[in-house]
Amino acid sequence: MTGIVYIVGAGPGDPGLITVKGLDCLRRADVVLFDRLADRRLLDEARGDAELIDVGKEPARHRRPQSEINALLIVKAREDKTVVRLKGGDPFVFGRGGEECEALAEAGIPFEVVPGVSSAIAVPAYAGIPVTHREMARSFTVITGHTCEAQKSESGQGPDWTSLPRTGTLVFLMGVGHLPEIARRLAAHGCSPDTPVAVIHRGTTPAQRVVEGTLADIAERAGGIQAPATLVVGDVVHLRGKLDWFHAGRETVSTDPDESFLTLETR
Amino acid sequence: MTGIVYIVGAGPGDPGLITVKGLDCLRRADVVLFDRLADRRLLDEARGDAELIDVGKEPARHRRPQSEINALLIVKAREDKTVVRLKGGDPFVFGRGGEECEALAEAGIPFEVVPGVSSAIAVPAYAGIPVTHREMARSFTVITGHTCEAQKSESGQGPDWTSLPRTGTLVFLMGVGHLPEIARRLAAHGCSPDTPVAVIHRGTTPAQRVVEGTLADIAERAGGIQAPATLVVGDVVHLRGKLDWFHAGRETVSTDPDESFLTLETR
Repeated sequence: MTGIVYIVGAGPGDPGLITVKGLDCLRRADVVLFDRLADRRLLDEARGDAELIDVGKEPARHRRPQSEINALLIVKAREDKTVVRLKGGDPFVFGRGGEECEALAEAGIPFEVVPGVSSAIAVPAYAGIPVTHREMARSFTVITGHTCEAQKSESGQGPDWTSLPRTGTLVFLMGVGHLPEIARRLAAHGCSPDTPVAVIHRGTTPAQRVVEGTLADIAERAGGIQAPATLVVGDVVHLRGKLDWFHAGRETVSTDPDESFLTLETR
Repeated sequence: MTGIVYIVGAGPGDPGLITVKGLDCLRRADVVLFDRLADRRLLDEARGDAELIDVGKEPARHRRPQSEINALLIVKAREDKTVVRLKGGDPFVFGRGGEECEALAEAGIPFEVVPGVSSAIAVPAYAGIPVTHREMARSFTVITGHTCEAQKSESGQGPDWTSLPRTGTLVFLMGVGHLPEIARRLAAHGCSPDTPVAVIHRGTTPAQRVVEGTLADIAERAGGIQAPATLVVGDVVHLRGKLDWFHAGRETVSTDPDESFLTLETR
């Protein structure tokens, strides 16, 4: 017999942003594979006897290879288990969810994808920044900051910087380590030095911290910000002054640090 | 006294893709403003005595003006009501959620944003298409198909087509009515006529239908497809052959047409 694998997006950080379907999968799972991006409190929602496997651990600073994660998903499913692969944000926005699905498909393992709220959209939203706006941005582009590394390598897997759009909002995920490089390349690409930029550290969580600036000064202003952080570039950053509704640490609807944050239970 | 407005993303269609926080808000609301994009079954989750207002109705084919929706949110909040503005997909991905927040901020009404799963990512996912893939697409751009109309108008609010990225995945929301125009412009922009394209009608719902083609022939192939539909352009469309996990009509985790689809309830 064969089980099934659910590739589930855990959302951007605020555990209340997991989907109803994702939470339902998590509560039924025999095995949960997670990594460091998912809020640990979500794991409390798994069954008491569920097997929880941290595949994001970094023994001696080496991440578990993707091939090993794929193999583990297949092994557990072949034991007739209901397996949840819990991934930060949305499984198909970077994070190699597509590769996991390919491995499962090749092995003949049934799988379903449960999309999640993407950090690319929700992290700016919690900072008071809509990624689109009728008068400011009719499109947005989401780019992995790892692109910079790829650019430096010979393989050059990253996108051609000269082909980046000149209009609309740009969102860089996982890019804070390359902030000076990104700012420099955008300027070289023709972006005005006055272009507003926000760097959002640990967005949607009580530890959220936002630094604003322009393309010219953001690298200096946000120099102390560590990963995980999201970069937003474009005129919509100006809306934050008016729309900054989330104040870190304030109690929100379904998040309460003192008790179970999920106020929903299975019928 | 003053109430509060929650700007809530309902997700892309599958009602199980609403967030836990969004569902919690919906169940507590005194007033719910919704429009035609949200799955009607979500409204069953509101309290029996909640006031449900359809602001998407089109009497004599005129949509209710945005200014009227903004005013209604303010009026209800000033009556000390807990108001939910339920919007399809994510509130800040087109759909004018930013404008609603601006109106609330200017009126001094407290509001919170509850991001949703965006159709831009989840609709392709249900068609077996990851918008990013390490070897195929290191970025993706989301564009409103209404752009074409804007281009034709004198105001020219739409993005400059020549500035669209030449790499990465392109996702057009609300663009099916302009499919020939979009295909023509992308070709003029330098996209190869062989570029794979998928048109996904009513994605994530049991009525989901997908038509595949290339930039050269998609306008003809998908000629019969009506709105709502999502367009995906790029090499990742090829992955659908392997990753097409969702088969319309098949029973999925938390969706069952015969009974309440939401298997979670408030503690």
